[in-house]
Amino acid sequence: MNPKVEIFSQGEELVTGQIIDTNAAWLSDQLIQMGFTVSRHTTVGDKLEDLVALLQEIADRADCCICTGGLGPTVDDLTAEAVAIAFDLPLEFDAIAYQQMADYFKQRGRSMPESNRKQAMLPKTSVRLDNEWGTAPGFALRTSRCHFAFVPGVPYEMKQMFKNKITPLVLSQFSARPWKLMTIKTLGMGESELQNCLEKLAFPESVQLGFRTGKDEIQTKLLFPPEFPETELQDFTSKVAKQLGDSVFSIAGQDDHSDDIATVINKLLQQKQLSLSILETFSHGLMAAKCRSVEALNEARFVANFERICEQMAIEVQNDLSALSINIAENFRKKAGTDFALVQLSDATKNDVADPKQSIQLYNAIAGHKETTTCLTRASGTYKRKQNQAALSGLDFFRRYLQKTL
Amino acid sequence: MNPKVEIFSQGEELVTGQIIDTNAAWLSDQLIQMGFTVSRHTTVGDKLEDLVALLQEIADRADCCICTGGLGPTVDDLTAEAVAIAFDLPLEFDAIAYQQMADYFKQRGRSMPESNRKQAMLPKTSVRLDNEWGTAPGFALRTSRCHFAFVPGVPYEMKQMFKNKITPLVLSQFSARPWKLMTIKTLGMGESELQNCLEKLAFPESVQLGFRTGKDEIQTKLLFPPEFPETELQDFTSKVAKQLGDSVFSIAGQDDHSDDIATVINKLLQQKQLSLSILETFSHGLMAAKCRSVEALNEARFVANFERICEQMAIEVQNDLSALSINIAENFRKKAGTDFALVQLSDATKNDVADPKQSIQLYNAIAGHKETTTCLTRASGTYKRKQNQAALSGLDFFRRYLQKTL
Repeated sequence: MNPKVEIFSQGEELVTGQIIDTNAAWLSDQLIQMGFTVSRHTTVGDKLEDLVALLQEIADRADCCICTGGLGPTVDDLTAEAVAIAFDLPLEFDAIAYQQMADYFKQRGRSMPESNRKQAMLPKTSVRLDNEWGTAPGFALRTSRCHFAFVPGVPYEMKQMFKNKITPLVLSQFSARPWKLMTIKTLGMGESELQNCLEKLAFPESVQLGFRTGKDEIQTKLLFPPEFPETELQDFTSKVAKQLGDSVFSIAGQDDHSDDIATVINKLLQQKQLSLSILETFSHGLMAAKCRSVEALNEARFVANFERICEQMAIEVQNDLSALSINIAENFRKKAGTDFALVQLSDATKNDVADPKQSIQLYNAIAGHKETTTCLTRASGTYKRKQNQAALSGLDFFRRYLQKTL
Repeated sequence: MNPKVEIFSQGEELVTGQIIDTNAAWLSDQLIQMGFTVSRHTTVGDKLEDLVALLQEIADRADCCICTGGLGPTVDDLTAEAVAIAFDLPLEFDAIAYQQMADYFKQRGRSMPESNRKQAMLPKTSVRLDNEWGTAPGFALRTSRCHFAFVPGVPYEMKQMFKNKITPLVLSQFSARPWKLMTIKTLGMGESELQNCLEKLAFPESVQLGFRTGKDEIQTKLLFPPEFPETELQDFTSKVAKQLGDSVFSIAGQDDHSDDIATVINKLLQQKQLSLSILETFSHGLMAAKCRSVEALNEARFVANFERICEQMAIEVQNDLSALSINIAENFRKKAGTDFALVQLSDATKNDVADPKQSIQLYNAIAGHKETTTCLTRASGTYKRKQNQAALSGLDFFRRYLQKTL
């Protein structure tokens, strides 16, 4: 039987709904890939008696529990104290943990506030989990039935600690056999479109299909059982990706999930040593900001509207924004001296932008050495969401262009 | 004492991490505004015995529980069955519920599949909650201590049913009085620094203090009981804000939480009809991207490094980046023709940027009509986090400058 795992999130801001718990879903996903069964997520706030009661419940019910949050320096961070009470394991000062925290502050040129000392107090008999990604050390301990691991709730620290500290520990205790996950990342189709698109395909019965909508991509997830042959896994994944067409920008196996639209663009440009400049309007700098990893992007500009661009470039304003985007892109490419120029214009009014029910149109153009290509895209939702969609749709247009032409 | 409320989400796709539970946070937020205390969120999958056990636990522990999910027509929708077993309330056919579903299908020109009949089976003694927004009816019932309400997990249906069906029911059962929340937003101090800073202040015993670290701000939250006098609430909030000094950029009451650093800058600039231009390096366009709401920002530039800027401006490269940032800011302000120019330079190497343990230094300058001011800031963590901190620290420097000089 698979060991029964639970996830426990601590935080008043979670239980009061101020922030959404994304840690629990991430951890479940990882644990299921490792071959575990996750039976329950529980979230409680910062009432000590609630924490103690929950820890005792879980200790009776589960074989393993991953706990996030409540390890900070402030008075409402009570996880270690709750553990001490629940399992009668008094807190003890851990000199190494203390030194690691002091070093962390020193490296950043700051002095450690006295309140951080609290974070070096760990329950007796617990094993310290070094936190190389933040201040609060984690810890692991075992009650008669259940293996507990405690890590900070900050998602970045939690993820690093899970991968580097908890995974080896857990795998040494349980003989779970990992499932294999393949993730196909797309832009340009919604979840239901993806699902419709895949309905024609015959799925092996043992393969689990799932979708996840992220901020900057939609993931189609294929989960294969441990015994599924590797070559068949690769073949079937390719089949699914082919079915989804040119919306696919990345296919990732278990260990490499980090590709985003910018890293894909970066690879394509680097292969041929090509350079890019960006001129954006509606997306307000966000295209450039997403291109952190695009080394060939040395320069980008945000100009509030196309009238202003025309004025600066001494180009006549045209009503046909597709035609105007070509004109501007060619002009801008020459000026910037790059192989490609990506330009996005918009004629959305202030009201269109502010109204979440109103979608807006975007006029994209890519100028290259030989030709200039245009494409219309749309963005909808709140202003913030529109800005994000505008930036993504421009970059995804460029990614498709590169994959077609290079 | 406030009634103790719990939230229970049912769904295999939630407990396995395929989708993130946004319902629980939304419900908590609503319930807390109504004056309730939410003590726990629990998520379980579609194992009948887990559902039954959880329902019985909650019935012993809470005064009220809102349950979402598991009311669909398929075999893995087991909530009603679990309720029947947990509280010995056999399922009974509800003819009105059945008719409502049949009408729902008829209105849409579709015939109702036989599998939907299951959704009209409600636990004995339960009160039907009509679902005017989808097919599955909800229901409410009371065990010896706890009032339960069950609604579908589809977010749109859940929200409508909560507002229109559950809220009146709950308000008629409990005389909850809303607490008042004040939120003080800061940049430039960590949670523990904020806490140390507030330690000198005498807090009224009934006021709850909390902190929340967001991506773009840290919030200090003061939760006041319903009977706390309004003038004292305002006075105490001001006292806390004063104690936190010029790190504070916004103080928000219950209904207005939307201020971010950019909207504050926008208000300050608009008051005096002043304009701004931005030239950023390390933050890669993100300062501009965050300034979506700053109407006076008509133009911004990203240039990868200061050497390139010097070349473009025909300025001699200097080793002293503070001095160079002044030179560049004054030059850039003239060129852009704005009242202020905000410039941020960095001399971080590629290794410094990539290493999450290495923090980097940023050289900020603001050129105005009369003078140019500089400021050093730092950014740490992953590249993505450094980029965000760099952008925020530059904008916050500008916000402080405006509040001091305008």
